[in-house]
Amino acid sequence: MQLQTASWPEVEAYLKTSKGIVIPIGSFEQHGPNGLVGTDAICPEVIAREAGEAAGFLVGPTFNVGVAQHHLGFAGSMTLRPSTMIAAINDWIDSLVRHGFRRIYFINGHGGNIATIAAAFAESYAAWSMDGDACPYKLRQMNWWELPGVMDVCKSIFPVGDGSHATASEVAVTYYAYPHAVKDVAMSPKIAPQGSFTDAADYRRNFPDGRIGSDPSQATPEKGAAIVAAAREALARDAEAFFKS
Amino acid sequence: MQLQTASWPEVEAYLKTSKGIVIPIGSFEQHGPNGLVGTDAICPEVIAREAGEAAGFLVGPTFNVGVAQHHLGFAGSMTLRPSTMIAAINDWIDSLVRHGFRRIYFINGHGGNIATIAAAFAESYAAWSMDGDACPYKLRQMNWWELPGVMDVCKSIFPVGDGSHATASEVAVTYYAYPHAVKDVAMSPKIAPQGSFTDAADYRRNFPDGRIGSDPSQATPEKGAAIVAAAREALARDAEAFFKS
Amino acid sequence: MQLQTASWPEVEAYLKTSKGIVIPIGSFEQHGPNGLVGTDAICPEVIAREAGEAAGFLVGPTFNVGVAQHHLGFAGSMTLRPSTMIAAINDWIDSLVRHGFRRIYFINGHGGNIATIAAAFAESYAAWSMDGDACPYKLRQMNWWELPGVMDVCKSIFPVGDGSHATASEVAVTYYAYPHAVKDVAMSPKIAPQGSFTDAADYRRNFPDGRIGSDPSQATPEKGAAIVAAAREALARDAEAFFKS
Amino acid sequence: MQLQTASWPEVEAYLKTSKGIVIPIGSFEQHGPNGLVGTDAICPEVIAREAGEAAGFLVGPTFNVGVAQHHLGFAGSMTLRPSTMIAAINDWIDSLVRHGFRRIYFINGHGGNIATIAAAFAESYAAWSMDGDACPYKLRQMNWWELPGVMDVCKSIFPVGDGSHATASEVAVTYYAYPHAVKDVAMSPKIAPQGSFTDAADYRRNFPDGRIGSDPSQATPEKGAAIVAAAREALARDAEAFFKS
Amino acid sequence: MQLQTASWPEVEAYLKTSKGIVIPIGSFEQHGPNGLVGTDAICPEVIAREAGEAAGFLVGPTFNVGVAQHHLGFAGSMTLRPSTMIAAINDWIDSLVRHGFRRIYFINGHGGNIATIAAAFAESYAAWSMDGDACPYKLRQMNWWELPGVMDVCKSIFPVGDGSHATASEVAVTYYAYPHAVKDVAMSPKIAPQGSFTDAADYRRNFPDGRIGSDPSQATPEKGAAIVAAAREALARDAEAFFKS
Amino acid sequence: MQLQTASWPEVEAYLKTSKGIVIPIGSFEQHGPNGLVGTDAICPEVIAREAGEAAGFLVGPTFNVGVAQHHLGFAGSMTLRPSTMIAAINDWIDSLVRHGFRRIYFINGHGGNIATIAAAFAESYAAWSMDGDACPYKLRQMNWWELPGVMDVCKSIFPVGDGSHATASEVAVTYYAYPHAVKDVAMSPKIAPQGSFTDAADYRRNFPDGRIGSDPSQATPEKGAAIVAAAREALARDAEAFFKS
Repeated sequence: MQLQTASWPEVEAYLKTSKGIVIPIGSFEQHGPNGLVGTDAICPEVIAREAGEAAGFLVGPTFNVGVAQHHLGFAGSMTLRPSTMIAAINDWIDSLVRHGFRRIYFINGHGGNIATIAAAFAESYAAWSMDGDACPYKLRQMNWWELPGVMDVCKSIFPVGDGSHATASEVAVTYYAYPHAVKDVAMSPKIAPQGSFTDAADYRRNFPDGRIGSDPSQATPEKGAAIVAAAREALARDAEAFFKS
Repeated sequence: MQLQTASWPEVEAYLKTSKGIVIPIGSFEQHGPNGLVGTDAICPEVIAREAGEAAGFLVGPTFNVGVAQHHLGFAGSMTLRPSTMIAAINDWIDSLVRHGFRRIYFINGHGGNIATIAAAFAESYAAWSMDGDACPYKLRQMNWWELPGVMDVCKSIFPVGDGSHATASEVAVTYYAYPHAVKDVAMSPKIAPQGSFTDAADYRRNFPDGRIGSDPSQATPEKGAAIVAAAREALARDAEAFFKS
Repeated sequence: MQLQTASWPEVEAYLKTSKGIVIPIGSFEQHGPNGLVGTDAICPEVIAREAGEAAGFLVGPTFNVGVAQHHLGFAGSMTLRPSTMIAAINDWIDSLVRHGFRRIYFINGHGGNIATIAAAFAESYAAWSMDGDACPYKLRQMNWWELPGVMDVCKSIFPVGDGSHATASEVAVTYYAYPHAVKDVAMSPKIAPQGSFTDAADYRRNFPDGRIGSDPSQATPEKGAAIVAAAREALARDAEAFFKS
Repeated sequence: MQLQTASWPEVEAYLKTSKGIVIPIGSFEQHGPNGLVGTDAICPEVIAREAGEAAGFLVGPTFNVGVAQHHLGFAGSMTLRPSTMIAAINDWIDSLVRHGFRRIYFINGHGGNIATIAAAFAESYAAWSMDGDACPYKLRQMNWWELPGVMDVCKSIFPVGDGSHATASEVAVTYYAYPHAVKDVAMSPKIAPQGSFTDAADYRRNFPDGRIGSDPSQATPEKGAAIVAAAREALARDAEAFFKS
Repeated sequence: MQLQTASWPEVEAYLKTSKGIVIPIGSFEQHGPNGLVGTDAICPEVIAREAGEAAGFLVGPTFNVGVAQHHLGFAGSMTLRPSTMIAAINDWIDSLVRHGFRRIYFINGHGGNIATIAAAFAESYAAWSMDGDACPYKLRQMNWWELPGVMDVCKSIFPVGDGSHATASEVAVTYYAYPHAVKDVAMSPKIAPQGSFTDAADYRRNFPDGRIGSDPSQATPEKGAAIVAAAREALARDAEAFFKS
Repeated sequence: MQLQTASWPEVEAYLKTSKGIVIPIGSFEQHGPNGLVGTDAICPEVIAREAGEAAGFLVGPTFNVGVAQHHLGFAGSMTLRPSTMIAAINDWIDSLVRHGFRRIYFINGHGGNIATIAAAFAESYAAWSMDGDACPYKLRQMNWWELPGVMDVCKSIFPVGDGSHATASEVAVTYYAYPHAVKDVAMSPKIAPQGSFTDAADYRRNFPDGRIGSDPSQATPEKGAAIVAAAREALARDAEAFFKS
């Protein structure tokens, strides 16, 4: 069930059977010459929706713009300041807790979000810890590519040049989700350089076309389908375990 | 063109032809017995995407959770605090302006957002006004149902019981967008009461099933299609005029 | 009764008879060649005080500086950032609620405040809605010129050139309140242009002397007296109805 | 000249002769059995206006609600949180600096404001100090009763029982400003106790009728006039010296 | 007992005997040609630790960076914005109150902190005052040089040139605490000028080597020992009285 | 060189030779039955100071209270809210950058800080990325136990029961730093349980004496000395490499 297409009586009924919800959380940022700006939102969204369909859990709205300041050197990239994102995540949490949700699972599509999501969770728990009451809910974040078994699938499909940004895997997942958006772009160099970065200017200087360590020209909808299939299963199991914890 | 499925070089190319972007902005909140929680995000999203397709402008990510504190008495409704929303909208604006966007058009799906969006715009302009430099960009918000001619279409389709929350019109638009989500629910009373509200408890007390003044059981995908067609044209014209202003 | 000249035992006694208070809320901003910078604070203040005197309700301090970033191109104009104003209005509300006030009526003198006041109200209600308790108080804002019947009076006095900023009506009200401040300035053009604006630079470019659509040289203390008389009656009735709601 | 009754061209003309402005800053809080809730706003306002009239300087709007959390145990008292007040004062400062004001003098009526005003000044200067540019303006706060010579006048008029809150002096000043608001209330005990306080509950427990160390039943409009006369002269001199510094 | 070297069971045991804790609070900022950047943190820390050792009270971590924007013209100086410091102090307070501490005594080493500490206390109390519950704890700040008798000792040791920033007294205390850090620097002029300041640029212009009114070349570890001995006794008595209040 | 015992001319001289500084960052929180509340601040502080002494780099003040909300169930633990910590770290960074520091290295002692430090860095970089200017400085965080080779030393000294909170290693480091604070406490069970946690109540329920997976009764000053020796060398090399990057 997706929250966006559910009615409130349906959500009320769902809450009698489960206190868990999955929130896709991503980013809008450049993903190299052939990757979609929405990649990091699309990946967790498609995986969560398929998993939710299969396992019967509720999928909330996608938190679609995250912390991507380092990508602002490339057109179309968007960012929240971390302090804004902490506030917004807490408003989402508080809204859901209000209705009785007790396990909120953020399935994440963007490495740059991890720290701020963790800080947002600590901000949420801190309110309870400082007051002295026990917090009635639990929060979890998981990167979709770190779900059990998923990275193995990615490595078997892309033994070379999967990379760490604008990866072949994530581009493949988006091509599966939006086959009409497949872009045929030659990569130069074939595999992008590896490295680290600080702000947007530093990132663009180090990674001129936006990729890090990847050759996403290998991506196809079919390969994406295989990755989604693996991730869907893994998420269904992981979310179920979390909801029961 | 949708930002989510564009690559950064495509956005860069677009910026050479236009400085304008349209951002759908909505809410996740109850919409009565047969309406979707995502209604206010879905409506501007579908209208913006069709208009963007037709007119060739860029559509950004949907700002999907807005100010809906008054709906929190119904399961699944979510809200941002207005102060959070002001911060988040400003981060979105700042990101887009960074790339050269100079006309940012928020097509809105939720009456409860109007004041906070306007306050967010004033917060954005204030930074320039207080420094003394001329602000290089313009911001616009428009409710999709107030686009020229749209309300006339809605009234002609639903002469009775269109209402003011969980309207027949907006439910029809979502049914058009998500025909598998059509819900067949009898309304009681046929037409919901009118009135005002303050917080969530007050809202729920006044409007027990969430509707205000509407009979959304009249909604069908076909009626939604007619509304979207009208809104799509009107948005294309209005955005184009704004981009040229 | 005015809060500023009341003692706390008098306020305590008042609270045994009424839970309502009226707060004038305005702005300090340019009002054209012959208008007072304090116009938008003065108008609701004088109307509220006369209405409070007549009807026996309590009038609180004037929230005198509002959101007027667009006027900063003219000397003497002042603004709060919307986020600051939301925080300040909430502190005022929380203080009054602490004492038992349950109906807080903001009589507003500035169009630029409307959105931020509404956002501030939503911020206040949201705290209750998110916690799940029913909010024990109600908030209301009303522009003095939109009180029932007032615009009719203004239109009958100024059939031409009342305008939408630095209106003949509001300047007349301030001349009634501060007759020694009447300024005799020729207007050029006689009636200022209409239009829209974004930031301060844009405003000044479009409206070189600060007026929008008005010829405030028509204002006199006598005309202001007539407007105040109408507004005073209307506010007394509207506040009374709100206090009883 | 008062900003509230000036037009923007008059302010513009003033700025060619002076870069200084005086801002009365006060509080709305209980002042004992016969004192006015607005006392701390009224005192600096009346002194500033008379001084401005005599010396020709500009007087801005009164910052009328300050930090008075400790008075909230008494009906009608209002407070800002210190963090809100810092933000609001900075918005006022930024607005005035925008127009070319370079000396902003806050004449204060409330001991509870002193720390937060000083913190607000440090917040303002910090923006420049951290950036490394020289701040082009200076800020000053002064309590009206600490203006040179004023305390001597107060002590000579009220050799016994002037006190430290709801003082005979400040009540006298408000009676001078609002003679119709004189309240004839017997004090019991004649002179209130001295002491310290923390929050509102602590304050009310220690000072049951709100006074600290004072017998304000000695206050009369005539005595207030004498105090205002002394303060007016002292402020005129002090502001002039500051504007020239 | 120092919190940093205590275990939690020791703190738990302590709380059965006392609800009081002392927090040294300082600044990292220039202290002239021979003074240590950490002076204002070191002084209250060493005094608090010796007093705590003698009197058996608990000493918490040192709040080491305060409001020192005016010193940023000199290398190594650090500052918090006042609004940040208010938030941080409140987090410290809330943490300690959570465990049952009811008397929190900030022993301060920096004049520039006084206002912001007071504002932070008001922010803390305001939460209780606005809610209407009695605050269960008390907060106190004291500058170490204003502890009873301490200034007399300083004046007797440094009858000339103690000064008001980078004082001979405070430098002596740090030399006592860190004898290996004694710096032999000739002062020119012998005694620094007196005066006031606003931002960092203004401070540096007025006080070229950072000192105000002092000749800290008189400082020795032995003189510092005498000052600490006096301050230690005074703090022990003052804290004990506060804890019992 | 330590900033706390340096004078500003010494810092100014240092900046001519290096643009780098190391900031120890920790936490005040329970560390089990025999561990010090200050452990996470002490460990990076002692390592940084010894490394700075050896390698000649500057060590700044210790950021001593971090994000430790989950430890608040144990007496003496303190926390910042993540949003507060982000603001404070940014003020520290801005202060240091003001003086010309261009490489700021946070040597961290607390796992619970990692996310918030990373978010604080992103907040800092975002200001530059959103404006479009290249950020002139770089930020780095490193957990002392993850410095190259350190974990190997810890594992060789404590092959069993080093654990993940209140580790034998960190307790040993603090015993080395404060040998008079060694506490002889029998552990029960000998090795604490492993697991995860959310808020303070959850943590205390899962880990009744505060330890996670450790037997810190193995800690001695001598073992701590060996760890510090390894960490000191590793930090010196890592900081030097960062300063040159």
